[in-house]
Amino acid sequence: MEMPISQSWFARATKVIPGGVYGHTSPAASLPLRFPLYAEYGEGCHYTDPDGNRYLDFLCAYGPVILGYHHPEVEKAAAEARSKGLVFNHPTPVMVELAELLTRRVGFASWTVFGKNGSDMTTWAIQVARQHTGRKKILAIKGAYHGVDAWTNPSPGGIIEEDRIHIHRFAWNDIDAFRGMVRNFKDQIAAIILTPFHHPAFGGNQLPAPGFFEAIQETCSKEGIVVILDDIRAGFRLHANGSHCVFPIQPDIACYCKAIGNGYAISAAAGTERMRQAAGQVFLTGSYWNDPVAMAAAKTCLEVIARDRVPEKLEKLGSQLLEGLERAGKDIGHPLKGTPPAATPYIVFDGDADLRKMQRFSGLCSERGVIFHPHHNWFMSAAHTPDVVEHAIEVGREALKHINDA
Amino acid sequence: MEMPISQSWFARATKVIPGGVYGHTSPAASLPLRFPLYAEYGEGCHYTDPDGNRYLDFLCAYGPVILGYHHPEVEKAAAEARSKGLVFNHPTPVMVELAELLTRRVGFASWTVFGKNGSDMTTWAIQVARQHTGRKKILAIKGAYHGVDAWTNPSPGGIIEEDRIHIHRFAWNDIDAFRGMVRNFKDQIAAIILTPFHHPAFGGNQLPAPGFFEAIQETCSKEGIVVILDDIRAGFRLHANGSHCVFPIQPDIACYCKAIGNGYAISAAAGTERMRQAAGQVFLTGSYWNDPVAMAAAKTCLEVIARDRVPEKLEKLGSQLLEGLERAGKDIGHPLKGTPPAATPYIVFDGDADLRKMQRFSGLCSERGVIFHPHHNWFMSAAHTPDVVEHAIEVGREALKHINDA
Repeated sequence: MEMPISQSWFARATKVIPGGVYGHTSPAASLPLRFPLYAEYGEGCHYTDPDGNRYLDFLCAYGPVILGYHHPEVEKAAAEARSKGLVFNHPTPVMVELAELLTRRVGFASWTVFGKNGSDMTTWAIQVARQHTGRKKILAIKGAYHGVDAWTNPSPGGIIEEDRIHIHRFAWNDIDAFRGMVRNFKDQIAAIILTPFHHPAFGGNQLPAPGFFEAIQETCSKEGIVVILDDIRAGFRLHANGSHCVFPIQPDIACYCKAIGNGYAISAAAGTERMRQAAGQVFLTGSYWNDPVAMAAAKTCLEVIARDRVPEKLEKLGSQLLEGLERAGKDIGHPLKGTPPAATPYIVFDGDADLRKMQRFSGLCSERGVIFHPHHNWFMSAAHTPDVVEHAIEVGREALKHINDA
Repeated sequence: MEMPISQSWFARATKVIPGGVYGHTSPAASLPLRFPLYAEYGEGCHYTDPDGNRYLDFLCAYGPVILGYHHPEVEKAAAEARSKGLVFNHPTPVMVELAELLTRRVGFASWTVFGKNGSDMTTWAIQVARQHTGRKKILAIKGAYHGVDAWTNPSPGGIIEEDRIHIHRFAWNDIDAFRGMVRNFKDQIAAIILTPFHHPAFGGNQLPAPGFFEAIQETCSKEGIVVILDDIRAGFRLHANGSHCVFPIQPDIACYCKAIGNGYAISAAAGTERMRQAAGQVFLTGSYWNDPVAMAAAKTCLEVIARDRVPEKLEKLGSQLLEGLERAGKDIGHPLKGTPPAATPYIVFDGDADLRKMQRFSGLCSERGVIFHPHHNWFMSAAHTPDVVEHAIEVGREALKHINDA
């Protein structure tokens, strides 16, 4: 992959941005000089970098672009809102319409609020739980990502012990550990925060084991612990009404973000009637949080997701991808396993604990114009087709053939 | 003010949004049925509500709309970026260009990072200071607003004592209190966070007293305390290169947000070379934080602010407004005082500690189509003209005549 122009941008960036590129798009977290450094133009499920290299994308901007780049209906709704104004002293009627739509969709919900980022909502949700219960402690899953706010930031930089003193983590699917914590912290636990399935960085997806969610639900109900579903990554990808419709979990509050606005910056939280009073007591705001353009985009995006049965489509395309890659791995002698949900697919190579094989595979695919992230789950979009998925599988097959090359 | 349509939207909203409208745009914080509830359309320095009432705006969406609604150059830059895509797996070159522009502008800075909201940056900045110093404590000013994150949220809802256990506040301009804290917490203070002038809610602006910033700067330099300038509200309104060019303060990190993107959602932090390493160690990211549309808008907005000498224009228009209202107050027998900076003007009535007079004045002006917020500083924009300011003064004069009516 030749990328002199991108490298030149990166050289300039290192002077004026710490590390050149920061956060989840940092090349240090990816594959320098194999993975693209910058993006230039997106269309459907493809994008180009500043050097004109073209990529078939299975990352979708780490999730948001669920309908593909430049979706005409979403762009039309956004343009119409934009022609009125970007942000005002007050909300606009579309905020009410979007809250009505989400509240109707998300079965357990009787209200919705909006933010700009996933962390905005997960952090607010634990505050609402603390306000509701008058308790401090939060249970979470080891290795689960809930954003960069101090209580949950995966990196230790700048974090102090008090930020996390009441956050207690246990392993995914470990019912005994969960019950032990509930016993230890009797009447002290405000909430548990869970993703609908475990999607750790540097590992495959893990579904809830039979009985795991049921045990949590029962205990939380008995102990007055608020159940928060972090559906930021998966929400509206697995089911048009939210991931709680797929797994046996009935949250008190659910948080959404990616997939709501097809790239327009918006996040949301929806909650039960029981949580309404506390929700109204935790101050929530931001300079641009009433943004009617993102809200209009989200309204249309959510409507399209339901109308076009996007979750079923993603499941089908993702299954095609995972099965194709598994078959290629078997044929070529590099056995691998697809980890569902297929809408947010990821693969794990046998005996690849250090991810060296995965890194190599990802780099070889990227050089051949297909973006499979080396250590973060991938995303299917409605702009993918069986044909481009078949092409991706062929590229994966080629990559596997060269995986042991020097 | 008749607003049946807005009231109907609000009635719908109360069902699906806790409180109907939350955060800083909550009508509970304003003047129900005197202040508009919803916005519909903005143009220049005017906007309409869903009932067709038209307002001359001195709030500018609480700051962002510094060039006026629908600024053609900003919209053109945003549209061009949008035609390429909204958000990608990677940053885009415009991020580098914007970081270069800000780093060049903000004299002390050698790097810049971006977020979506003011809180994103103030919270990250205190983490960078903690990382840099290995210390925990943060000094701040009583009543200063730095966002809704737990360490600084002005409301107690959902906050636990550990969130603020290392935040210590003293009164604006109280050098002795500041020095006392530095003595008490010798070698424990990571940072002090300051706005360039004090702009509390429910009160007038307060400028730094002679010697206040100088004393802070000298002590912080001696004690190794990081100086963070929260220039979110005022940044690029008082000076095209940032408010530290107006007041005797040389921060290690400055945070910006409103006024950067003329309504497009973006915030930024800029810092000195000394802070670069720590800045690179505090994980910073968000789903939409690489948004090239907002960055392209910001680049153009900041260029227009400098080219058109917007800060000077705002100072002149704001001074006209404050002087006109002071004169009207004197003429009519309701003496009031304008509190500078004039670019973010606010007035305080003599003997109005409970703000009843201010509330009344604000309501009467709103009914006459002029938006003067009752307890938050106002904002001048480049879309204001001497004529509309003169009109606003006349409306203010009319309001003053009726301020004691039943």
